[in-house]
Amino acid sequence: MNDGQNEKTNQRLFLKQVPDGLAGPDDFEVREETLPQLEEGELLVESHFVGLDAALRLITRDSDEFLFRVRPGDPVHGSIAGQVIESRHDGFAVGDYVSGSLGVQSHAISNGEGLERCDLAQAPLGAWLGGFGNSGLTAYFAVIDECKPQPGQTVLINGAAGAVGSMAGQLCRLAGATVIGLTGSKEKCRWLTEELGFDVAINYKDDDWFEQLAAAAPDRLDIIFDNVGGDVLDQSLKLIGMHGVVLLCGSTSQYSEAEMKGPANYIWLGTMRARLQGFVVFDYADRYAEARERMSRWIAKGELKLPCHELEGGVDQFGEAFRQLYEGKNLGKMLLKLPAAG
Amino acid sequence: MNDGQNEKTNQRLFLKQVPDGLAGPDDFEVREETLPQLEEGELLVESHFVGLDAALRLITRDSDEFLFRVRPGDPVHGSIAGQVIESRHDGFAVGDYVSGSLGVQSHAISNGEGLERCDLAQAPLGAWLGGFGNSGLTAYFAVIDECKPQPGQTVLINGAAGAVGSMAGQLCRLAGATVIGLTGSKEKCRWLTEELGFDVAINYKDDDWFEQLAAAAPDRLDIIFDNVGGDVLDQSLKLIGMHGVVLLCGSTSQYSEAEMKGPANYIWLGTMRARLQGFVVFDYADRYAEARERMSRWIAKGELKLPCHELEGGVDQFGEAFRQLYEGKNLGKMLLKLPAAG
Repeated sequence: MNDGQNEKTNQRLFLKQVPDGLAGPDDFEVREETLPQLEEGELLVESHFVGLDAALRLITRDSDEFLFRVRPGDPVHGSIAGQVIESRHDGFAVGDYVSGSLGVQSHAISNGEGLERCDLAQAPLGAWLGGFGNSGLTAYFAVIDECKPQPGQTVLINGAAGAVGSMAGQLCRLAGATVIGLTGSKEKCRWLTEELGFDVAINYKDDDWFEQLAAAAPDRLDIIFDNVGGDVLDQSLKLIGMHGVVLLCGSTSQYSEAEMKGPANYIWLGTMRARLQGFVVFDYADRYAEARERMSRWIAKGELKLPCHELEGGVDQFGEAFRQLYEGKNLGKMLLKLPAAG
Repeated sequence: MNDGQNEKTNQRLFLKQVPDGLAGPDDFEVREETLPQLEEGELLVESHFVGLDAALRLITRDSDEFLFRVRPGDPVHGSIAGQVIESRHDGFAVGDYVSGSLGVQSHAISNGEGLERCDLAQAPLGAWLGGFGNSGLTAYFAVIDECKPQPGQTVLINGAAGAVGSMAGQLCRLAGATVIGLTGSKEKCRWLTEELGFDVAINYKDDDWFEQLAAAAPDRLDIIFDNVGGDVLDQSLKLIGMHGVVLLCGSTSQYSEAEMKGPANYIWLGTMRARLQGFVVFDYADRYAEARERMSRWIAKGELKLPCHELEGGVDQFGEAFRQLYEGKNLGKMLLKLPAAG
């Protein structure tokens, strides 16, 4: 397997420039690289899916304030799922399906660190970057461990049709809560209520979305699960209920803004003894298997879906997929499905 | 005691107009009223001290968004401490010292509901509106029950020389934490470190206050105790540490602003798994005695002070005292000391 005949070309994505506003194709560039031979202890993954993560927009900003940063000329961070096609690693064999944070590229050499084995009997490969990957695990632990929805409670999901929101809403419903989803189109509203079982879905582009929300939550909101920030978070804070939880999962509406906006209505947290809670899924890494086990049982009973939105193309289509993510074209996790996926 | 000879005149404060910017004398007016005879079960309090509460500015805004509101023409909310001078109430005798939320006035008739008996052996009467009143109890329960500072941790108090901040800082030090206070003058900085034992005090009017703060907290902040909101909260959020607590006790810097500003750096809560926690002291009403008991022991040992800042004058001086509160003239709780206090 290491005989020189497999000199492969890798397509790898780099950041070309600091994006201005929504990021898109012009901000990225693909470079072709010849892959080196594997060293002992390494393996080669052929990527089938690239997961699109909204937070990438944040870390490409021209600011050193964030803990990670992708600068022009840097390879683009990203999670991929694929198949091991060569291995000099004892833990992984050719044919194994894996996922990991290996960067946006068609092939990746790994020493196995941080690599996740994907059991396709539990979920299809793409879903290991979505509902079965960090997005779904984020929703799972944020809902089960932090928000703890109860029957009779009312939950608002901001960014409800996204990768995390679509999972969080389903999980809150499974816990017996009434779930309201805020999203950006009529079509997505219909999808949330008809396909995912949300109790109510509201289009935040409607002029009267806040009035619709207030009417749907006459006893206020016990939980706000926020993925978007900005005006939607700010307004919805006015409806937070006593001892409520506002789970802070992302602020996607702000990542492309030159000047980020904070939620002035945070003062409602005071009156309501509520909390705005930060959350990072990696703290729960030792419980991922438990979460997937439990989600598998719900999936088997038809009570949980792992929504993925696939755009087909090569690594060069990443910028287009990223723009579509920010335009809200996706239902569930936005994936770039590479030719190797067949 | 109810023989008609005690027809007394009350000086009572009303809101005259919705304040524009900082509230001051022109926004209030005193009206003289003849007090009615007491009914069975009532008592008459002569007010010695009026407590100044920054939140009054918030509820005088031209907005129905808040749960309470004081409109032009309404009597002004406020807590007073004084002495019972007539009683037809079995539970209170003439001469008893009491405090309560009886409104800003020289005399108040009460049926005893919500009235607190003040033991002057525990703390002087004025302090029952400050360190021994809602301000100090807020600091106590917010620190002990929500923030839970530990030895080795670093705490930032925003609005450190105010009624709540000055108590919170002392309580965090008693718990063994390193305490940094942010306040608005050199004089107040000196007072915090020399009189109240703060480890560091920083003047937020210094151009480099944030750099001073970052230098004073090289391991970031475990707790931010915020009374002010606005830019000070926003900037300090950048320094919140892992699993930190940002205790939301007030947003005084914003109450006079036409357009309130939210903290854009709330996204740091996410990265740091931190929380912005709302808090209302009334939830702890059944433990006030326990808190005062414990504070008394610290006071007796000289480990805790109950700072009060007294401005002497009649009820008509309330507007002036309120303006001075917003100008930050006070060290500790701002009190209006009425002539009856002697």
